[in-house]
Amino acid sequence: MSVLVVGSTALDSIKTPVSENPRLLGGSASHAAVAASFFGPVKMVGVVGDDFPKKYITLYKKHKIDLEGLQMAQGQTFHWSGEYELNMNKRRTLETVLGVFETFTPHLPKAHKESPYVLLANIAPSLQHHVLDQMSKPKFVVADTMDLWLNIALADLLKLLKRVDAFVLNDSEAHLLTKETNILPALKKIHKLGPKYVIIKKGEHGSILSGPSGLFTAPAYPIKCVIDPTGAGDSFVGGLLGYLASVGGDVERNLRRAIVHGSAVASFCCEGFGLNRTTRVTRKQINDRVRELERMMKL
Amino acid sequence: MSVLVVGSTALDSIKTPVSENPRLLGGSASHAAVAASFFGPVKMVGVVGDDFPKKYITLYKKHKIDLEGLQMAQGQTFHWSGEYELNMNKRRTLETVLGVFETFTPHLPKAHKESPYVLLANIAPSLQHHVLDQMSKPKFVVADTMDLWLNIALADLLKLLKRVDAFVLNDSEAHLLTKETNILPALKKIHKLGPKYVIIKKGEHGSILSGPSGLFTAPAYPIKCVIDPTGAGDSFVGGLLGYLASVGGDVERNLRRAIVHGSAVASFCCEGFGLNRTTRVTRKQINDRVRELERMMKL
Repeated sequence: MSVLVVGSTALDSIKTPVSENPRLLGGSASHAAVAASFFGPVKMVGVVGDDFPKKYITLYKKHKIDLEGLQMAQGQTFHWSGEYELNMNKRRTLETVLGVFETFTPHLPKAHKESPYVLLANIAPSLQHHVLDQMSKPKFVVADTMDLWLNIALADLLKLLKRVDAFVLNDSEAHLLTKETNILPALKKIHKLGPKYVIIKKGEHGSILSGPSGLFTAPAYPIKCVIDPTGAGDSFVGGLLGYLASVGGDVERNLRRAIVHGSAVASFCCEGFGLNRTTRVTRKQINDRVRELERMMKL
Repeated sequence: MSVLVVGSTALDSIKTPVSENPRLLGGSASHAAVAASFFGPVKMVGVVGDDFPKKYITLYKKHKIDLEGLQMAQGQTFHWSGEYELNMNKRRTLETVLGVFETFTPHLPKAHKESPYVLLANIAPSLQHHVLDQMSKPKFVVADTMDLWLNIALADLLKLLKRVDAFVLNDSEAHLLTKETNILPALKKIHKLGPKYVIIKKGEHGSILSGPSGLFTAPAYPIKCVIDPTGAGDSFVGGLLGYLASVGGDVERNLRRAIVHGSAVASFCCEGFGLNRTTRVTRKQINDRVRELERMMKL
């Protein structure tokens, strides 16, 4: 079944101690949509400016991503530039240019409104709401976020949490949201805010799912060298929902395996700048890493 | 089958922002021996001074720990005092008094020399060597260590690594030893130093086993409130080896499950000061947490 992804479509300029990589294809929707595309059809909703390179449109199309909901506006594409430290654990934002995102309102084409699986990738919570407002009854809605929205749009985000099935955030965001350092009381508080499923991303330490059948912990796929972790979280949740949509059926039964698929896709994302590595991956390579992850978890 | 544990037997004074806990039973051998005792017979080798409280001898005996190899010497028992920060992640040593450990040489009683499972818990590598020198052919030898020995007794430790089957260390020690921040090259380097199995402890993020059948990742058992993590690593490895000895047979086949048992025991250790909680635990409570951990890992 089809996945609808809404989020940011951006150009990322990423500096590391050893290289500069200007105007890479980036944004939460780009990463998530490409990740989901390995498992089945994806519809992407976002906006790009008139400076958006054609080659990136070609890249989306190569992944058979439905671009009917991708608006082309006059002005500059959303641009993020950031710098990583040597160990890739810390990054700082050098500049953010909102560009065409400043006036963006997502309009869903008719066919999009029936999408059973919806990924509200990282974007302003008000826009995530706006997408949900246009949907007829989706089967499973996942929302991702970032610290920025916890700081400047908390009320919107809290309202959103009452409307989603699953909420994905990283451990420091969970701490920011709940003021709890311990994961158990943090999860309890987040569930009380609405989501049936809470997924905590812990980077190299994997992820934790909390839901009706208790906790599930999945390792991250260990890679030899982290080139650029930008978008790894978006790839994770995109791969997760893409897998879930592809198998259909009972979410509860398939969510654990979906998380492992998300981890596998995210590991590829970290192995290249922007989407350079992810867009060269095959489904077989993803499946190989899924099998390796399964072996790493097996008693 | 019986486990031989050699390590430090100590009194620990542990300060936290909310309480002071003087002269608790501590030391790597104490934690590891009690942890192993839940699974079968344990022989402990160490030294205590004439100030060592009788109630702690009673506690060892309650856990049926064979004390024939525990020397009673004139002088002060090894004493460590440390202080934890509020989030329990950082600690600093306030004082270390070596006391009777300064002149300690472990002498193994005859029956100890045949022990098939040997845990060289954290202690000077020269003493770990000295124990191995006295052993006839043990079936499985595990060594633990700490950053101190990597800094002041590296040559001894490197020699030791050629004599053990498994080496246990935490992630920052792995970094200190190999200068690698990435876990894969770090593990490769450590295997080259000798051990067939390498186990990396990652605290709340669980542990990683590397061996002939690849990697295995186990979560830490999530607890609501960390009271005192002192000795958790010793409890982990003690529980691990205790379980392994209790099931016997092929180590390769049982090591993953042993790690999960170690995690379960370690979680109890963190729930009380010193050995306060661990010594009140039942095998059934441990098994319950093992089952929960298994559910957390199951696809």
